[in-house]
Amino acid sequence: MMLNRNGSQASMPGPAECFTGQVRIDPIHLQAQAPSRITSALVTFEPGARTNWHTHPLGQLLIVTAGKGWTQCEGEARVEVSAGDSIWCPPGHKHWHGATDRTAMSHIAVQEMLDGSNVTWLEPVTEPQYLEG
Amino acid sequence: MMLNRNGSQASMPGPAECFTGQVRIDPIHLQAQAPSRITSALVTFEPGARTNWHTHPLGQLLIVTAGKGWTQCEGEARVEVSAGDSIWCPPGHKHWHGATDRTAMSHIAVQEMLDGSNVTWLEPVTEPQYLEG
Repeated sequence: MMLNRNGSQASMPGPAECFTGQVRIDPIHLQAQAPSRITSALVTFEPGARTNWHTHPLGQLLIVTAGKGWTQCEGEARVEVSAGDSIWCPPGHKHWHGATDRTAMSHIAVQEMLDGSNVTWLEPVTEPQYLEG
Repeated sequence: MMLNRNGSQASMPGPAECFTGQVRIDPIHLQAQAPSRITSALVTFEPGARTNWHTHPLGQLLIVTAGKGWTQCEGEARVEVSAGDSIWCPPGHKHWHGATDRTAMSHIAVQEMLDGSNVTWLEPVTEPQYLEG
């Protein structure tokens, strides 16, 4: 059994090459333990903050734990999500997720590794894309 | 994108053949979306409640979201866990988890499907096993 105590893994800033705005990543389970493919982190977006567009090779489960945010899949309308909602994004589907422009949002993210990667980062979500959905 | 709104999936009692005491299962992502193997639920144990002994074919990630509980792997000492702790239990490892005798505990559980199963249920955790660790 591996036990990660609350407070034993330092918070990390979401890097500017993957996120817009102020984002904090609190590690939960960053290293998949093969043959398991699971990785997980708690991600907190300050108002206005969001991921870049990106894809996941085996999809992603998001569990919103606090606040209200926005998410969008390419070619679909932007959707508002709140604490207690969960979102499944299929493999290879281009999407972004983050806070609303006025409210912070936190979610637990769970994604599986494939050939050493669990995400492919793409271009930033522009201000018009973000605000107009 | 699949969006499960807070309140859209009914709470379920933890069945007596798998749990001791009062346990509530709140579905998060019960059906793995192949090729993904991920399934997830929020599980709440009232004081004294716990799982049976069981194993997971590809392991299990537990994220404690509220309260204080106990968990034990076979052959190891019982461990107290609190909100914010996370636990990785390896594939095939016999374990149990639940509340303490005086306090409730909730955790998000994430486990992967293998050949149509994500858990093998075993015998109940006896009162001496539970109380003495």
